[in-house]
Amino acid sequence: MNIFNEMESEVQSYARSFPVVFNKAKDCYLYGEDGKQYIDFLAGAGSLNYGHNNEHLKKALIEYISADGITHGLDMHSAAKAKFLEVFRDNILQPRDMEYVLQFCGPTGTNAVEAALKIARKVTGRTNVISFTNGFHGCSLGAAAVTGNQHHRGGAQVALNDVDRMPFCGYYGHDVDTVKMIDKLLSDPSSGIDKPAAAIVEAVQGEGGLNVASNAWLKALEKVCKKHGILLILDDIQAGCGRTGTFFSFEKADISPDIVTLSKSLSAYGLPFAVVMIKPELDKWLPGEHNGTFRGNNHAFVTATAAIEHYWSDNSLEKAVVEKAAIVTRCFKKVIDTHGAMTLRLKGRGLMQGIDCKTGELASKICQRAFEKGVIIETSGNHSQIVKCFCPLTIEVDALTKGLDLLEQSFAEVFAEEALKKAS
Amino acid sequence: MNIFNEMESEVQSYARSFPVVFNKAKDCYLYGEDGKQYIDFLAGAGSLNYGHNNEHLKKALIEYISADGITHGLDMHSAAKAKFLEVFRDNILQPRDMEYVLQFCGPTGTNAVEAALKIARKVTGRTNVISFTNGFHGCSLGAAAVTGNQHHRGGAQVALNDVDRMPFCGYYGHDVDTVKMIDKLLSDPSSGIDKPAAAIVEAVQGEGGLNVASNAWLKALEKVCKKHGILLILDDIQAGCGRTGTFFSFEKADISPDIVTLSKSLSAYGLPFAVVMIKPELDKWLPGEHNGTFRGNNHAFVTATAAIEHYWSDNSLEKAVVEKAAIVTRCFKKVIDTHGAMTLRLKGRGLMQGIDCKTGELASKICQRAFEKGVIIETSGNHSQIVKCFCPLTIEVDALTKGLDLLEQSFAEVFAEEALKKAS
Amino acid sequence: MNIFNEMESEVQSYARSFPVVFNKAKDCYLYGEDGKQYIDFLAGAGSLNYGHNNEHLKKALIEYISADGITHGLDMHSAAKAKFLEVFRDNILQPRDMEYVLQFCGPTGTNAVEAALKIARKVTGRTNVISFTNGFHGCSLGAAAVTGNQHHRGGAQVALNDVDRMPFCGYYGHDVDTVKMIDKLLSDPSSGIDKPAAAIVEAVQGEGGLNVASNAWLKALEKVCKKHGILLILDDIQAGCGRTGTFFSFEKADISPDIVTLSKSLSAYGLPFAVVMIKPELDKWLPGEHNGTFRGNNHAFVTATAAIEHYWSDNSLEKAVVEKAAIVTRCFKKVIDTHGAMTLRLKGRGLMQGIDCKTGELASKICQRAFEKGVIIETSGNHSQIVKCFCPLTIEVDALTKGLDLLEQSFAEVFAEEALKKAS
Amino acid sequence: MNIFNEMESEVQSYARSFPVVFNKAKDCYLYGEDGKQYIDFLAGAGSLNYGHNNEHLKKALIEYISADGITHGLDMHSAAKAKFLEVFRDNILQPRDMEYVLQFCGPTGTNAVEAALKIARKVTGRTNVISFTNGFHGCSLGAAAVTGNQHHRGGAQVALNDVDRMPFCGYYGHDVDTVKMIDKLLSDPSSGIDKPAAAIVEAVQGEGGLNVASNAWLKALEKVCKKHGILLILDDIQAGCGRTGTFFSFEKADISPDIVTLSKSLSAYGLPFAVVMIKPELDKWLPGEHNGTFRGNNHAFVTATAAIEHYWSDNSLEKAVVEKAAIVTRCFKKVIDTHGAMTLRLKGRGLMQGIDCKTGELASKICQRAFEKGVIIETSGNHSQIVKCFCPLTIEVDALTKGLDLLEQSFAEVFAEEALKKAS
Repeated sequence: MNIFNEMESEVQSYARSFPVVFNKAKDCYLYGEDGKQYIDFLAGAGSLNYGHNNEHLKKALIEYISADGITHGLDMHSAAKAKFLEVFRDNILQPRDMEYVLQFCGPTGTNAVEAALKIARKVTGRTNVISFTNGFHGCSLGAAAVTGNQHHRGGAQVALNDVDRMPFCGYYGHDVDTVKMIDKLLSDPSSGIDKPAAAIVEAVQGEGGLNVASNAWLKALEKVCKKHGILLILDDIQAGCGRTGTFFSFEKADISPDIVTLSKSLSAYGLPFAVVMIKPELDKWLPGEHNGTFRGNNHAFVTATAAIEHYWSDNSLEKAVVEKAAIVTRCFKKVIDTHGAMTLRLKGRGLMQGIDCKTGELASKICQRAFEKGVIIETSGNHSQIVKCFCPLTIEVDALTKGLDLLEQSFAEVFAEEALKKAS
Repeated sequence: MNIFNEMESEVQSYARSFPVVFNKAKDCYLYGEDGKQYIDFLAGAGSLNYGHNNEHLKKALIEYISADGITHGLDMHSAAKAKFLEVFRDNILQPRDMEYVLQFCGPTGTNAVEAALKIARKVTGRTNVISFTNGFHGCSLGAAAVTGNQHHRGGAQVALNDVDRMPFCGYYGHDVDTVKMIDKLLSDPSSGIDKPAAAIVEAVQGEGGLNVASNAWLKALEKVCKKHGILLILDDIQAGCGRTGTFFSFEKADISPDIVTLSKSLSAYGLPFAVVMIKPELDKWLPGEHNGTFRGNNHAFVTATAAIEHYWSDNSLEKAVVEKAAIVTRCFKKVIDTHGAMTLRLKGRGLMQGIDCKTGELASKICQRAFEKGVIIETSGNHSQIVKCFCPLTIEVDALTKGLDLLEQSFAEVFAEEALKKAS
Repeated sequence: MNIFNEMESEVQSYARSFPVVFNKAKDCYLYGEDGKQYIDFLAGAGSLNYGHNNEHLKKALIEYISADGITHGLDMHSAAKAKFLEVFRDNILQPRDMEYVLQFCGPTGTNAVEAALKIARKVTGRTNVISFTNGFHGCSLGAAAVTGNQHHRGGAQVALNDVDRMPFCGYYGHDVDTVKMIDKLLSDPSSGIDKPAAAIVEAVQGEGGLNVASNAWLKALEKVCKKHGILLILDDIQAGCGRTGTFFSFEKADISPDIVTLSKSLSAYGLPFAVVMIKPELDKWLPGEHNGTFRGNNHAFVTATAAIEHYWSDNSLEKAVVEKAAIVTRCFKKVIDTHGAMTLRLKGRGLMQGIDCKTGELASKICQRAFEKGVIIETSGNHSQIVKCFCPLTIEVDALTKGLDLLEQSFAEVFAEEALKKAS
Repeated sequence: MNIFNEMESEVQSYARSFPVVFNKAKDCYLYGEDGKQYIDFLAGAGSLNYGHNNEHLKKALIEYISADGITHGLDMHSAAKAKFLEVFRDNILQPRDMEYVLQFCGPTGTNAVEAALKIARKVTGRTNVISFTNGFHGCSLGAAAVTGNQHHRGGAQVALNDVDRMPFCGYYGHDVDTVKMIDKLLSDPSSGIDKPAAAIVEAVQGEGGLNVASNAWLKALEKVCKKHGILLILDDIQAGCGRTGTFFSFEKADISPDIVTLSKSLSAYGLPFAVVMIKPELDKWLPGEHNGTFRGNNHAFVTATAAIEHYWSDNSLEKAVVEKAAIVTRCFKKVIDTHGAMTLRLKGRGLMQGIDCKTGELASKICQRAFEKGVIIETSGNHSQIVKCFCPLTIEVDALTKGLDLLEQSFAEVFAEEALKKAS
């Protein structure tokens, strides 16, 4: 551990919650150097939807490396990229009647968001962008500007401008129609809201606290965007790639975003990868206008291709996610009923569910306890008040149940201790 | 090829210069699907200093993957990261008497630049930053602001602010001391240049046209920075990792930058990876203040570790680079003497040398001709007027010589054709 | 008229509505070169609360000029300034239990707003500012940023940043508590609204459409500002100086703004003049930090002093405004009842009342007709849909009644014509 | 004096240097309440070129007020405005072969600069603007951004963006051609300098330290602007209206700026007034797009008209300025020869000359001593190191000589005391 204290920056974050050196991982399990096994309910913050070192993908990757396939080729054509494009088109886009071209930007979510905002501003000739309360989109300057989180915004030290903030679905309570508010502001030439190039939104806000946009709200937002010539950017970096039960988080809302950003689990193996999906008619990039050395990670092409072929050629994974999500819901409802129907609240949908514990202190204690019991789990939300369960989609039901049991015990123990404290 | 036209964005750049589908690569060679071999004088724009699929690294990587080592772990401690930190400290930092902590930011150069600017602004409490004419630092909003290139700046559509531009070494001719100008501006309370948090600079400007900062200039810049409380950020993303003959491009200038950014060839295998080196006393990050899903790519830790152990435990690679650089210089001088001592000009140093052809049109024709002869090579510079030779550092002398011969022929043919055109 | 076409910029605005050359004015009357008399219901957009060339003030001004009193003295002490400060303190501040120091900024409203925002940002060390939908604060860059009007914002061509827009009282209907929304946004560390230095607000939005903030709303806003360490800037440039029936527009709300801006009718004679009232503990200016050649217009000191002595040493003017306001209300209610109880709406309070005609086209026709009948009156509102009556506060009741009669006739005629048009 | 301490903001500046209450002024003299007479070598920082309460103008003004001429009329046509436009056209523009339309903006210099920058950005569709080291253009946000002075910039607390700073004539010594540098930066697509809408420049930098742009430099700047499609804004607020010996400061440079800003002495009587002169083809304002309550101050129209008729219908004033300037030069050369040919330096031209004393401390002592002797004079320059003589243009030679004598004595005494101090 000393080497980390000595040589790694104070910026470390997860390493503080889980002060263990990990040296091996498989499917839903992480292993410490001492051999201790942990159930992973964090899943790389949504980057490991297919678990660690998924055997199907691993095989493909080793084969590719062994054969000296292209590893790095800037944005040159490679056989691996061609294969990925075909498989993505045939298994993801065409069955959903979607038509997009793909931009391979720098292989991180924030790079995808930067590219999305840039092309939206370029195409519309407008500079302003709408983003939403509790939205999280990244830490580079352009992405931080659309991010709501003060902790991340504050680091910039410079003004994060050219953005107007709008209330997300349900922000002022579920009886307040926030899209109607947005429409009023945009229709009023003296509202002070300059006509935006784009609205960037998550269908489920992962970092922001598992806030779910209703299908009706997304549909209404799309309509308002169209009315005012605003491009709709759906940031599906965390909620996409099956996390909510469908490949894209917004499929059931019956909307057609102008731009979609994907990253995290897109490579399926935890490899850096990001894509901006752009409606063909909006693809007005000049050659190389937005570039980056690692755009188009060929190892990621290989594992992403294998994952799509294996998991998305039929709907068995989708079905499995729905079933496992139901298990999580049942467990969480029970926890809520037992420990605080008045104070605890179920959040999220699909396999991105959690329990709102009201305070970050409480949520943190529960995660801490779970870790001691062998479960890796983290909080989210504006006050870190939500215990957020992010298991791999491919987790075995037994492992899921075991993890949930340990989590349930953690809730029980912490609540008992808190009660005792108050009593004394 | 159709799949690329159909499915990939217009933003493609290198693919336009080299319209081939590559499917294999080894050391300094790329292979098209038709089996045709190309000598790679582009080397992933400086990301493949050790060649393609370097056998030493490949072995380590396959072993690691086979053993289910951690692939993705956010910023959690992993055995692979510990190893990398140790090896980097022991082989890179300590022999050079350097003391830094490492921040693993999102695995691209632009992310490293964003992090560097952010910590510099945070630590100093200032917002302004100095960057240089013809500097290139990336395409996300914060990095684009310090980048000079209009093609990349223009894409942003929003103001790229909080930056003042200063003349690089030799910008106004080699008799004009541009650091003295900077000092005058910074010393004058009415110059209009707000006190900057940092100056971000490359020791050799790769994209900007192989412009070399002299050691004296870098030393003077460091002194002026100290005088005005400005942090010096040395962006060594392209020129670092041995490209100029030493691990860091600035070693011979005897300076000690406050922050150093590394990426491109740091993973040594073409895998996405980036690091911000920060002087320990400046490491004022709050936990997770600047984050990113793919910070700390474990595969890259493995290959980087293998590369450092193999290539940087003694000075044999450094020696070899100096020898090969001399071969390139000899060849280029000959080309210049033959075809235009008055108009052509040698640029760069180490294995980042090139020939300034005055016009982008001419440089492009020569690269095109070289490609037809089996050499992958690109232009750089503000008018794309420079033919830029970026071979792997590990290239065999025979291959280097062969590539240079083909390049020399390309110059000869194109100049002959141009002469003919003019005559007619 | 030719000279104006030839020599004056296209930026002319009121001159287009009233294409007459005026050469004389007295009290509530303007006179054209042809001798035609007009009743002035525009009153210099609120700059002529005491009418044109008010005899009391005129006498004082001519005396001062004749005696070679200081005309221009930068910010040096002058006897006229001393007198103004005393009179303002004794007649305006002390009777209202208010304690402020006065900054004499450049003599226009926008300069006062610039100074107010600057000192608020300086004192709090924050950059963001809250302003409101339909707020109007001026046209220089800092003031334009807090202004809502797109027509004025658009001219800037640069980003108008460091401002978050909030909904004014009643913006989403009178059952929606917009201050509660603001509090929620400011209390949420992930809302994306950076902690503001200040909130700048008008008690009655003049240009924005005679929108009235309720006393309860202003009180609640003050409370939320205090809670979050935000300075409250009350922009009383248009609604102040007696226009609403009290000297300050916010007196009845029982609030104590941190900063108050005054201009327009402060000089009382139509002379350029502006003041920033700052709570003494916030007066952290460095000497000359915010300056301007014409700060402290001595002629304006003289006329302002005379006006305060004459009109504000007792409450007779206040009483008179209340009575005249009632006359306007009665007239406008009658117009509304007669012509469209369903579509027309009464706006504003005091002597800044108007009728919302739903469309700018209609409102413009009515003003045009009134002008033909000898009444100068203009529209306001986000769609210029409001006929806005701004007579001098000192207007004789006879003249007021006559003007209102002519306005009533204008409504009647235009509505009759519109009905006819629809019928045909 | 107590009333100022009690009631006026700490922002006071000149009042600190001259702690007297003035109550009368005539021509070149100011009088304290105690009757003490001061010779005014400050002249309202250039606003009183015709002296205080000039009898010719005073008569016209009192007549106009007595006759109830329009005082405030927003931007409506008035007889006084018509007269001013005619007289300005006939006496100022036509004799100089200049063709401009006039925009009457808010009556202060900073408002004129805001308007000039806005129209330049609007017409060109570009956002960036070039301004110069040591330039001073005002304190509202847009004008502060082009101002160099840190004391004034710092107050803003927000980023002052969309401006690139260039070196003024002679900034790097008189052998360095700074316009050539600007051309290089603008011609280089990777310099990082975005194509500007405008360059804003003073022919003689008043606040910046009486730095004089040579005619050749201005001519070259105009040429470079044309080459790159940049509008040239000549800020003649301080140096205009005869201060340098011609009505416009740039007349001898034979340039034709696209936009000229005038204020300060334009009203001729110290009344707030400002004008933006725009080449007719650039007058693309929409009606009311840039507005302001006090645009077009009618009292100022009257005095400005009288001044132009009296002083600018022939060249007698110009001649007189040249003669008086020679007297100042002679005196200052003598002072320099006597007290420090090595350290003191003559600055400026026309009746805006001064002596560079190297340090602000010394310059301040000299001005302080002069004040004690009955001369009002101030410093300028980036370190306030310049004693700046700004007498009225109309000053009698006797008064000028007397003032200069007192100033000379002040230099002598202070230098003697300094010598004594050093010796001890």
